[in-house]
Amino acid sequence: MNKGRIKVLDCTIRDGGLINNHYFSDDFVRAAYKALSQSGIDYMEIGYRSSRELSPPEDYGDWKYCDDDKIKQIIDGVESNIKLSIMVDAHRIKEQEFAPADQSPVDMVRTALYVKDIDKAVEMINKAHDLGYETTGNVMAISTETEKDIVEALKKLAASPVDVVYSVDSFGALYGEQVKYLIELFKVHMPDKEIGIHCHNSLQLAFANTIEGVIQGANYVDGSLYGMGRGSGNCCLELLIAFLKNPKHDLTPILKVIQDYMIPMCEETEWGYIIPYMVTGMLNKHPLSAIAIRKTEDKDKYAQFYEDIRKALD
Amino acid sequence: MNKGRIKVLDCTIRDGGLINNHYFSDDFVRAAYKALSQSGIDYMEIGYRSSRELSPPEDYGDWKYCDDDKIKQIIDGVESNIKLSIMVDAHRIKEQEFAPADQSPVDMVRTALYVKDIDKAVEMINKAHDLGYETTGNVMAISTETEKDIVEALKKLAASPVDVVYSVDSFGALYGEQVKYLIELFKVHMPDKEIGIHCHNSLQLAFANTIEGVIQGANYVDGSLYGMGRGSGNCCLELLIAFLKNPKHDLTPILKVIQDYMIPMCEETEWGYIIPYMVTGMLNKHPLSAIAIRKTEDKDKYAQFYEDIRKALD
Repeated sequence: MNKGRIKVLDCTIRDGGLINNHYFSDDFVRAAYKALSQSGIDYMEIGYRSSRELSPPEDYGDWKYCDDDKIKQIIDGVESNIKLSIMVDAHRIKEQEFAPADQSPVDMVRTALYVKDIDKAVEMINKAHDLGYETTGNVMAISTETEKDIVEALKKLAASPVDVVYSVDSFGALYGEQVKYLIELFKVHMPDKEIGIHCHNSLQLAFANTIEGVIQGANYVDGSLYGMGRGSGNCCLELLIAFLKNPKHDLTPILKVIQDYMIPMCEETEWGYIIPYMVTGMLNKHPLSAIAIRKTEDKDKYAQFYEDIRKALD
Repeated sequence: MNKGRIKVLDCTIRDGGLINNHYFSDDFVRAAYKALSQSGIDYMEIGYRSSRELSPPEDYGDWKYCDDDKIKQIIDGVESNIKLSIMVDAHRIKEQEFAPADQSPVDMVRTALYVKDIDKAVEMINKAHDLGYETTGNVMAISTETEKDIVEALKKLAASPVDVVYSVDSFGALYGEQVKYLIELFKVHMPDKEIGIHCHNSLQLAFANTIEGVIQGANYVDGSLYGMGRGSGNCCLELLIAFLKNPKHDLTPILKVIQDYMIPMCEETEWGYIIPYMVTGMLNKHPLSAIAIRKTEDKDKYAQFYEDIRKALD
């Protein structure tokens, strides 16, 4: 493992946006941008570039769309070498517009894809690449796909101009040995691509699995401030920085933005190790049922939730 | 890895007792005993056998002493095959009494030791063994000991009648590769002993490190309900059960006792992934400074805490 060549991406605003419909205050986004820049993080993912037709603006905050002008307003005047990324869902592509990269504050376009949408994804990757963006393909829900389908998608990505391909454990269901197996598969079928890893924390394994990914050769790693992200959340950025021990990183600004913004935020918006997400993770299921029960009076009836979900699987 | 021969020990009352001075209600201890029994857990560690001279009863609850009569009162009338263990600190041995094992509800005596106290520990192990108890030696704060000292202690344990020797990451500072290294060391120097692993969750690695221990050959694993334990807490018992997939285990009673008791309890008593414990873990320090700051108004001033502790290390 060569920790020096690791690229760290913070996905707080993007993955965290999934739990608050992308309503973050400008003040917070700017504070995060400053802190991540000061801490020497390589990339900040500032949200999605979504279609306003599919996702109407009355339902979502600015970071669902990440208009270039909005981004410029946030970063204006802040000294920073951080690169910005935005995400596009391959299954929700419709009329989104992209300026040429040299006219945009965005450096990288990450295309999130289910393997069934690999062709749409490659089309998006080609488009972004041709416009001059760095590109990634993020293979979601990888714990639920057959090896045959994964390999087919990897081969198409290997033949595309994509720079990085991510293994995304959307359900937080993977153990370290499975991460190792998947990264091996990536290396075999895409020997010329860089490999990324994005983990969820349903089984408290997001950090450990990210380390395992790095040991196996992944060098793009996702984290978020205090783990903010859908359901159980992501790998904690602060843990990644502690692990990497890269002198270019400074943990203090990250801890400061956690204390000033994330702690108050998690009083209002829930993420982290919570039993219903642990149950969906252990059963390799989408966290939707856990998200749903957490909005009801039965949110802490864990035993019943577990029994119900197991019955539904029978 | 042979998951079938794994012995799972719940240490909620013992390690959790460190954060509430061992004041648990009889109702809760009995509910935990019932749930753990129904779930097919192998051992329940019900507390410490401490000296009343060193630890006066006005300062502590019953589970600091674990008198046989008190234990009998709790377990009376509950159908159970679970074994009970108690812990003794090698550096705090003074006039504690032990009935012969066949007259006690306790099955196993675990001796917690710093390597400097290895001789006292072996004395305790001999005594407990001669009285008919199963015995373990738990090598604490192992992340801070030199290999030479660890090996010396292991050799003395290898020559003792102890049944199991635990690697205890008291500070939650170890990464998986270090766990692997330590378990290898245990196997080399104690080929005839069983190996146990006890982890803390400062870096969110307690579960992952426990799995790593199992992969390397440890077969006694510690967990606690919802991870309750000092500072960042322990490996979550519910995660261990999900991982082991042993048909003798039933997760439902564990989830039930978590929802009924642990969730209300963690409103009052703090444990888990909290930044000051993450900081002491990453710096391989005892969590005492983190415990102290969490009792002050500055409990969420993470950046300052980190800077202060680093300065103190200069």
